[in-house]
Amino acid sequence: MRVLSGIQPTGPFHWGNYFGAIQQYIELQDVADEAYYFIANLHALTTVRDKDLLKQYTLNGAIDLLALGLNPEKAVLFIQSDVPEVSELCWLLMTGTPMGLLERCVSYKDKLAKGLKADAGLFAYPVLQAADILAYDADIVPVGEDQLQHIEVCRDIAGSFNHHFGETFVMPKGKVLDQSARVPGTDGEKMSKSYGNTLAVFDDAKKQRKQIMRIQTDSRPMDEAKEPDGDVLYDLYKLVATEDEVAAMAATYRAGGFGYGEIKKALAEASERYWAEVRERREEYAAKPEVVREILAAGAEKARAKASVVLKRAQDACGVIGY
Amino acid sequence: MRVLSGIQPTGPFHWGNYFGAIQQYIELQDVADEAYYFIANLHALTTVRDKDLLKQYTLNGAIDLLALGLNPEKAVLFIQSDVPEVSELCWLLMTGTPMGLLERCVSYKDKLAKGLKADAGLFAYPVLQAADILAYDADIVPVGEDQLQHIEVCRDIAGSFNHHFGETFVMPKGKVLDQSARVPGTDGEKMSKSYGNTLAVFDDAKKQRKQIMRIQTDSRPMDEAKEPDGDVLYDLYKLVATEDEVAAMAATYRAGGFGYGEIKKALAEASERYWAEVRERREEYAAKPEVVREILAAGAEKARAKASVVLKRAQDACGVIGY
Repeated sequence: MRVLSGIQPTGPFHWGNYFGAIQQYIELQDVADEAYYFIANLHALTTVRDKDLLKQYTLNGAIDLLALGLNPEKAVLFIQSDVPEVSELCWLLMTGTPMGLLERCVSYKDKLAKGLKADAGLFAYPVLQAADILAYDADIVPVGEDQLQHIEVCRDIAGSFNHHFGETFVMPKGKVLDQSARVPGTDGEKMSKSYGNTLAVFDDAKKQRKQIMRIQTDSRPMDEAKEPDGDVLYDLYKLVATEDEVAAMAATYRAGGFGYGEIKKALAEASERYWAEVRERREEYAAKPEVVREILAAGAEKARAKASVVLKRAQDACGVIGY
Repeated sequence: MRVLSGIQPTGPFHWGNYFGAIQQYIELQDVADEAYYFIANLHALTTVRDKDLLKQYTLNGAIDLLALGLNPEKAVLFIQSDVPEVSELCWLLMTGTPMGLLERCVSYKDKLAKGLKADAGLFAYPVLQAADILAYDADIVPVGEDQLQHIEVCRDIAGSFNHHFGETFVMPKGKVLDQSARVPGTDGEKMSKSYGNTLAVFDDAKKQRKQIMRIQTDSRPMDEAKEPDGDVLYDLYKLVATEDEVAAMAATYRAGGFGYGEIKKALAEASERYWAEVRERREEYAAKPEVVREILAAGAEKARAKASVVLKRAQDACGVIGY
C-alpha cells in the first residue's frame, strides 16, 4: 500500500483539521509500505498571493505535521514545488484531459455559480492534483467523503492518458476518512476557517483558555439535567479528555446542578494537557527551522527519486524522450 | 536582442514553411545577441498521439533545421521537453491566468466552433507557449501576422503574473515575418499541409521532379503571351531560381510560344540545384543521429541554464522557494 496526501498551506491547523483528517493521515504511516505527505504550495498559489505569507504557511505546515507526529523515518515529507517532475507530468496529462471533465469539477463550478471570475489555475487544478497522485504510483489517497470526486477525476485523467498512450499509471483509490467525530466550532456550527469559529491546534494554552471561556452557552438553569451529546463544550471535551473523564463529565451533565464555567475550565485543562506534547514539539521544531528544512530536502530527494521513475514511464509512453 | 522561436514537429517541412518562416527565423541567428530555437514536442502532444511518430518528427525537425543552416555555434537548438523549467513555469503562470483570456484564443475557439471536443491541452496551450517565451527572457518572437494574438496573450499572461507578484518577466514583442512571397501549392492554392498540396523541402530530386511534372496547368494555347506573376510554376520558380533566370523566365511568359512542360523542367532543375546543398547536409546529419543528439543535449544545457534563472525569479516572486 502506497499512501499519499497533500495538505494546502493556507494557515494554522484547527481542531477540525486535526480530528477530521490529519490525525488519520498520520496514522497511516504505520501501516503503509510507503507514505508520501506534501505541502501543496503550488495549489495554494491560486489563493495565496502574498509571497511571504505563502513561505510562512509552507514552512509552518511542515512544522505542524512533524509536531503532530509525522515521522520522517516512516513517511516522506516534502514541499510540492520541490518536485519539478510533478509539473512536467501535469502538462503530459493536460494534453489528453477532456475539457468536459474539468468543467464538471466542483470547485470551478462553485466559483462560476457565485458569479466570480476564475483563473486557469483553479480550472486546471484537478490535473495538477492528478499529477501529484500519479507521480508516486499512490494507490491509496485518504480523503473526506466530499473529496471523492477528486479521486474519480484523477482516475479519469489517468485513464485518458492510458487510453491514448497505453497502460502507464497505477489507478489510485480514495480511502474515506472517518469524519463521524463531531468537531463543533466555538459557535456550535461545524468548525471551519471560513466561519471564524476555530480553535487552533497550536495556540498557546492561555490564549486558548480565553477562547474557551468565551464560548457561548445556553441559559438553562444550573439545576436542570442536560443531555451531553450535541453540547459544544461536551463534544469538544470528548476529543481531548480521557475516557474516564468523559464518562464522568457525561454523568455531570445528566445529573444537572453544574455551571458551564466549570465545564469550560475542565475543557481548557483537558485541552492544555492533550496538546501539551505536540505544542512543545512544535516549539522545538520552530526554534530549529534548519532542521525542518533538512527533513524537507531529504523528503524531496526521496519523492523525486520515485516521481522521476514514473515521469520517465509517462514520457516514454508518449514519445517525448528517446527521440 | 534575444530571439526565440518554437517549431512544432508535425511532419516534414514544405516550401511554404521554409520561405514563409524558417528561412527568416534562421537568418535572425546572425543579428541576435542570443537566439533560441526549439522543437515544440510538448505542444505536438495535443495532436500527435503515436510515440514513434513523435520521436521521429522530433529528431527530424532538429535535423531539418540544422540542414537548413541553423548554426549551433550561433543559436541554441533544443527539444522543448528537455527543459523541465518550462513545465514548472507553466503552472506558476497558469495560477493567475484569467479563464476569459484562454477562452478567447483562436485555436480553441475554432475547434469548438467546428463542434469538436477539445482537450485541456489545447485550451491551456497559450500558457505553455507563454512559458516557452518568458523562460528565456526573449524579447523578439518572429511570427506570422496571424500569430500576433499569441504574443499578445503571452504579454497578458506575463502582465497578470507581474500584477499579482511584482515585475518578473521581460515583455516580448512579436516580429512579423515577411510573408509577401507567394508560395503556392501544387494546386495553385496556398501551400499547406492540410490541403495536401505541398512540395517537401527534403524530398529527393527525382520524387520532387515527378511531383512538379504533375502540377496542373491551364489550357491556354502555347502561342498566347502570358502574365507570369500569379502562375503557379512561375511563382515557385521565383523562389528557387537565380535573379537572371527569373528575369529570363518572365520574358518567356510574356513572349508566349512556350509549353508548360519546359517550364516544369526548368523548375525541377532550379529546385534540385537550390536544395542540393541542404539536402546533402541533411543526409550527413541523418546518417549521424548521435551527433544531432549531442547538439541537442548541449542546446538543452544552455537553454536550462537560462530558463533556471528565470524560473527562480518567478518562484521567488510568488514564494514557492525560500520558505
